[in-house]
Amino acid sequence: MKLYVVGLGPGAWDQMTKQAVDALEECDVITGYEIYVDLIRERFQHKNLITTPMKKEAERCHIAVKEVLKGQTAAMVCSGDAGVYGMAGLVYEIAQQYDPIEIVVIPGITAACSGAAVLGAPLIHDFVVISLSDLLTPWSLIEKRIACAAMADFVICFYNPSSIKRKDYLKNACEIILNYQKESTMCGFVKNIGRTGETGRILTLDELKDTQVDMFTTVYVGNSKTREIDGKLVTPRGYTIT
Amino acid sequence: MKLYVVGLGPGAWDQMTKQAVDALEECDVITGYEIYVDLIRERFQHKNLITTPMKKEAERCHIAVKEVLKGQTAAMVCSGDAGVYGMAGLVYEIAQQYDPIEIVVIPGITAACSGAAVLGAPLIHDFVVISLSDLLTPWSLIEKRIACAAMADFVICFYNPSSIKRKDYLKNACEIILNYQKESTMCGFVKNIGRTGETGRILTLDELKDTQVDMFTTVYVGNSKTREIDGKLVTPRGYTIT
Repeated sequence: MKLYVVGLGPGAWDQMTKQAVDALEECDVITGYEIYVDLIRERFQHKNLITTPMKKEAERCHIAVKEVLKGQTAAMVCSGDAGVYGMAGLVYEIAQQYDPIEIVVIPGITAACSGAAVLGAPLIHDFVVISLSDLLTPWSLIEKRIACAAMADFVICFYNPSSIKRKDYLKNACEIILNYQKESTMCGFVKNIGRTGETGRILTLDELKDTQVDMFTTVYVGNSKTREIDGKLVTPRGYTIT
Repeated sequence: MKLYVVGLGPGAWDQMTKQAVDALEECDVITGYEIYVDLIRERFQHKNLITTPMKKEAERCHIAVKEVLKGQTAAMVCSGDAGVYGMAGLVYEIAQQYDPIEIVVIPGITAACSGAAVLGAPLIHDFVVISLSDLLTPWSLIEKRIACAAMADFVICFYNPSSIKRKDYLKNACEIILNYQKESTMCGFVKNIGRTGETGRILTLDELKDTQVDMFTTVYVGNSKTREIDGKLVTPRGYTIT
């Protein structure tokens, strides 16, 4: 019996891989955060669907591992990629407490990639992915990572850029980047990637600093070479254009 | 008429998204680097398949754009994600030279994510992606990026870690990281992700420094918290484990 940890991609059915669909079809039980299980509920309503709310991540992993030990094939579903701020890590950590089970991680399209495709091609060169949530990470470490990323002219992709309690975090992040990059640095963000209401916007770092985004948004800060081409955000790789 | 820039994922048919398959089915013409077109040749042999060799990237984009202007629906295929060291950027840059066409980027699973799934869950926390190829990027900038990433305790994922001319680049990269991270830092690499001969290995930074990998390998250097759990490489997010 296996535990699949499955990345569903951004949410639209056609942005899942066949491997992810096949794994879910093979399962008896599908566990996950309720919002993510909702993404596949209609298609898999004949399965045993077990959801837990936010902040019950460890409990969710215990449930999944125990189902496998009962003889069930189970999946833990995550949005995006299960391995990028997803549950794959915690599943391995929790599973250690039990008899050995087989764990298979099935990757999905993470928001950095799906959002980039909406905006154009901002991640064509070296980039960093940083979560602005300080729920599990000290803000001082997040600040240091932002500064080092900007100093080395990486393209930066921010996950969890805002929440009700963290309204000014993206502004703070932009201010750190402005110590190293110009106000005119090209940036962008995408809201509701692959879901109803998907919208992208391209703007400068100076404008981004004073823009409020929500928690369903992925934010991109270009490197010094990123530019706007016909309404798209593009980071050149450096090819000679003939 | 449209130009789809399509990420095929690591190579295995079942790791493509339905969106990518649907786009290729809609096309009259599929262009790409010959090795990537080979990944889908059997399934799409009834299409007009146009390949160009390595280092003919700009030519490939001109061909694709011209096919669209002739009234064809065309695709440019890339392995992994078209937006991560892929052709999506160059397509936008080249297309500017012509009458406007519609360009749609379809994301795929990039090697950072597909390789991470093979090793376990190394990318669960903030990470950087760096290409060690200095064909289009000065080595001094690559060095600076490696140093800044290590200094801020990012997980690091290296693309293009080696080639015939660049046998010692990964060693040099590890030496830079060793200025900031311990010799015992947990690392891993995956060769031939999603293809025949897929193999992963977990090792310390000190061991990685003296390991030769090939150009079909993706390399991971953990952060200070990354560890091995039951033969898997796992970076904790920071959840309290109960």
